[in-house]
Amino acid sequence: MEKQRLPDTPFWVEPESVGSDHLELSPEESHHLVHVHRAKLGAPFQATDGTGGFYECVLESVKHHAAVGRIVERREDWGELPRPIEILVGNPDRRAGEQLLEHAVPLGASAIDFVACERSGPAGSMGRDRLIRLARIAKAALKQSRRSRLPKLGSSPSLEIALGGTCEAGASGAWRRFLADPSGEPFPHGRIQNLKAAIQLAVGPPGGFSEGERQLLLRSGFSPISLGPSRLTTETAVLALLSLVRNSL
Amino acid sequence: MEKQRLPDTPFWVEPESVGSDHLELSPEESHHLVHVHRAKLGAPFQATDGTGGFYECVLESVKHHAAVGRIVERREDWGELPRPIEILVGNPDRRAGEQLLEHAVPLGASAIDFVACERSGPAGSMGRDRLIRLARIAKAALKQSRRSRLPKLGSSPSLEIALGGTCEAGASGAWRRFLADPSGEPFPHGRIQNLKAAIQLAVGPPGGFSEGERQLLLRSGFSPISLGPSRLTTETAVLALLSLVRNSL
Repeated sequence: MEKQRLPDTPFWVEPESVGSDHLELSPEESHHLVHVHRAKLGAPFQATDGTGGFYECVLESVKHHAAVGRIVERREDWGELPRPIEILVGNPDRRAGEQLLEHAVPLGASAIDFVACERSGPAGSMGRDRLIRLARIAKAALKQSRRSRLPKLGSSPSLEIALGGTCEAGASGAWRRFLADPSGEPFPHGRIQNLKAAIQLAVGPPGGFSEGERQLLLRSGFSPISLGPSRLTTETAVLALLSLVRNSL
Repeated sequence: MEKQRLPDTPFWVEPESVGSDHLELSPEESHHLVHVHRAKLGAPFQATDGTGGFYECVLESVKHHAAVGRIVERREDWGELPRPIEILVGNPDRRAGEQLLEHAVPLGASAIDFVACERSGPAGSMGRDRLIRLARIAKAALKQSRRSRLPKLGSSPSLEIALGGTCEAGASGAWRRFLADPSGEPFPHGRIQNLKAAIQLAVGPPGGFSEGERQLLLRSGFSPISLGPSRLTTETAVLALLSLVRNSL
């Protein structure tokens, strides 16, 4: 059989469509593999299931529009950072939110909560349609960046609720929390200690956190971090802070 | 006179319109100050000239559509990093290039060269129209981020030419050069030593640098830096590397 080029990007597979030694792609992904990439039986491809599974496969059959792959190798947590990083971000406008995902998913965010802050404007927390659209963007970014765990997306109606509810507890119950804040200190050089702590970042909406929200964050143990002498938009600040934190794991 | 709210963002002023104690805004910026912000005589405003000058002003007069401000305070290199950072980036598509500027200007880039690399595709180096559009985006980002030095934008027809020509020499003739490269080492913790060296970052186009280009970069003293386990787009890699470098100055 003629040697075929491996598609550059993994295909999405629903976790429930992964068996012990085979997996089955959805009709849409199957179409992409078989008709767009023109994969023949025996062709290699990769798949990611968004829950930590990343699979090296060989196309074994195509039945009823579904491509079935034999799993050659499983890679657990492929493309993932050593620790999850959760982001609380003051709800920016639609375009900024989408741009943020396009960068923050490849950079390894494990959860992103778009929080309706006091200065988020009339938007409030996000509607279902917008979250569905963001989920689609996140899935595309996950594939593109060859990660294996889909970040959890959400939208909290207030910062207080965001801090109370949405975050995984650290294994030790401890947190390492960083707040983008012009009056803070530069991000510390060296590695983040306390390997069991859960990591959480907070960045205000375009108008910034209110003083009440800022005090709540400081009381909750967020370290204020200055990101330099210029003024950053919400989405740039998220990417800058995330880049620093992920490099210190 | 009624106390007026300072506009949140500085106005652009051409360097040649700045005198010893007064400056004059262009008709467009004057319109914005006087008619959009409804500034009255005596109102405070700020201006940035893109060559390191940042001015605290008071509106003194409006003549022939030109707002004249009395300079109350001059701030040299306001919003600027302690050292310039130049970026060589393999020419990405139009949207990615614009997004890159929207983040890289606030993050303090001092020069961005969009290089036509071997894998840049048919686009080659950028046409004049596209550079003019990018310059407009850079100026808006400069104002928004409250910086005072406009990054130099350019487009080189090859990496070799980019390395030869466009960059300011370090004061000592030395370079600190970093290359985004999946096979590299993590970015070092701690501050960048050799304070006189010029800093330059290189990130490949969407297809990556060719092996020949990579070897040229390594021979030119670029340290290969791994940006983590996931695959990053050209523009995300620029922002991640820039965020790390600016925090280590």
